[in-house]
Amino acid sequence: MNPSRRKILRWEKGTPPARAVDELASEEPLEIRADNQRISVTMRTPGHDHELAAGFLLSEGLITRREQILDITHYPRNRDKNVIGVYLAPETKVDLQRLTRHVFVSSSCGLCGKTSIDAIHQHFPPVKTKITVLAGLLLHLPEKLRAEQTAFERTGGLHAAGLFDADGRLVVAREDIGRHNAVDKILGHGLLNGLLPLDRHILHVSGRVSFEIMQKALAARVPLVAAVSAPSDLAVKFAQASGQTLVGFVRGQRLNVYSHARRIKFP
Amino acid sequence: MNPSRRKILRWEKGTPPARAVDELASEEPLEIRADNQRISVTMRTPGHDHELAAGFLLSEGLITRREQILDITHYPRNRDKNVIGVYLAPETKVDLQRLTRHVFVSSSCGLCGKTSIDAIHQHFPPVKTKITVLAGLLLHLPEKLRAEQTAFERTGGLHAAGLFDADGRLVVAREDIGRHNAVDKILGHGLLNGLLPLDRHILHVSGRVSFEIMQKALAARVPLVAAVSAPSDLAVKFAQASGQTLVGFVRGQRLNVYSHARRIKFP
Repeated sequence: MNPSRRKILRWEKGTPPARAVDELASEEPLEIRADNQRISVTMRTPGHDHELAAGFLLSEGLITRREQILDITHYPRNRDKNVIGVYLAPETKVDLQRLTRHVFVSSSCGLCGKTSIDAIHQHFPPVKTKITVLAGLLLHLPEKLRAEQTAFERTGGLHAAGLFDADGRLVVAREDIGRHNAVDKILGHGLLNGLLPLDRHILHVSGRVSFEIMQKALAARVPLVAAVSAPSDLAVKFAQASGQTLVGFVRGQRLNVYSHARRIKFP
Repeated sequence: MNPSRRKILRWEKGTPPARAVDELASEEPLEIRADNQRISVTMRTPGHDHELAAGFLLSEGLITRREQILDITHYPRNRDKNVIGVYLAPETKVDLQRLTRHVFVSSSCGLCGKTSIDAIHQHFPPVKTKITVLAGLLLHLPEKLRAEQTAFERTGGLHAAGLFDADGRLVVAREDIGRHNAVDKILGHGLLNGLLPLDRHILHVSGRVSFEIMQKALAARVPLVAAVSAPSDLAVKFAQASGQTLVGFVRGQRLNVYSHARRIKFP
């Protein structure tokens, strides 16, 4: 639950960029097992993991009463405490087999073990593109994206993502109730229209930046992600290790640079 | 992409509640298949489904180039257009089997077919509790929850959920990088502490309300969900069918009631 601290570069238009320390929300994967069978992997903020596991089983209809749980415990051999097991009373008669299907496991799954970010880099190597982007240009991305958010204006209920070139020109914008879906639509647009690799582009998102947003950007070779809101600590850690520039809190005349500031050209 | 319209009750403190029409963000499940094998189910806003499917395959590392896709098409027998198939070129050699695992499929999966909400009600019947809550009490929930959000104050990067009794007293509050996790932690707390069923309680969330939030609330028998931001159209449809009162845009002196307003007592 405790936020982690990280050195960042804070910039306000009209002033030089300044070093600062920012506090980041903690994000880590949790694998939930029921009777030693993996039933879910979720990106979560550590803390109250027992409640999270119990609540997940309840909301998925696997259990209904306290008495059906014998024990809930982190797997002792997993030092990161990212695997938790729920042990069910024998009379519970939960047919786990019936409730499971062959389903693709998201890439975040690899993060539960010790392999972590290195494993993802074996599939998606870090980006090394040497583009530079004017800091002032980044400040205008939110208003450019907002101009495309026709459905948000009417409902207040949608995330948005926009792909921009290094000069700040909009390539494509997409809205979705899910932030990851909006990014997947952008990537799919790039793939289907022959724009890949997106290694001279900026991905701009209307909300927060999770680890998965950075991982998706890396899959399309995007070197710079800019967001209106906060990144998680794992998003910053991943961006740092992946050669990606991560900019957050792009609001009004300000922004924060969390990693690889070399791609940002300040006035 | 087109928002749907719905009749709601809009209330501002000091005035009588008034009927109004609100526009809601569209939310529906999409099942993505690769070569007829199910690889993902995601709650998404319909539109640009081809891009979403292609982008998902790209970001999960299944494909890297346009040429690896022969065709992308909605399943013709699924009238809701909630199942889409990607057909891969034979030389692509994607080892889908290797990339899949036995993993629990979220309850939203049932929504891809025609069974939909009825199927969920077979497991979690609609709630019928006749509690009433003062409208003015709901206006104070955001500030009460905010007072508990110690990590949000410092990072700006966390969702929060709070469980309140019908008199507006806080029972438990939880923060998480994922909105669904914050709710699961609340439910788990209730389960592990013998508080279930939560049929005289209010669930308050700091952000938007998706279908899954309402479904989780129903699993714990919560009759009233109040949120600071917008609900999706499926969240409202589900709440209506499940006997749940759904209140959104609880901000300052105002709120919107989207379903079962009988539980709200206006001055």
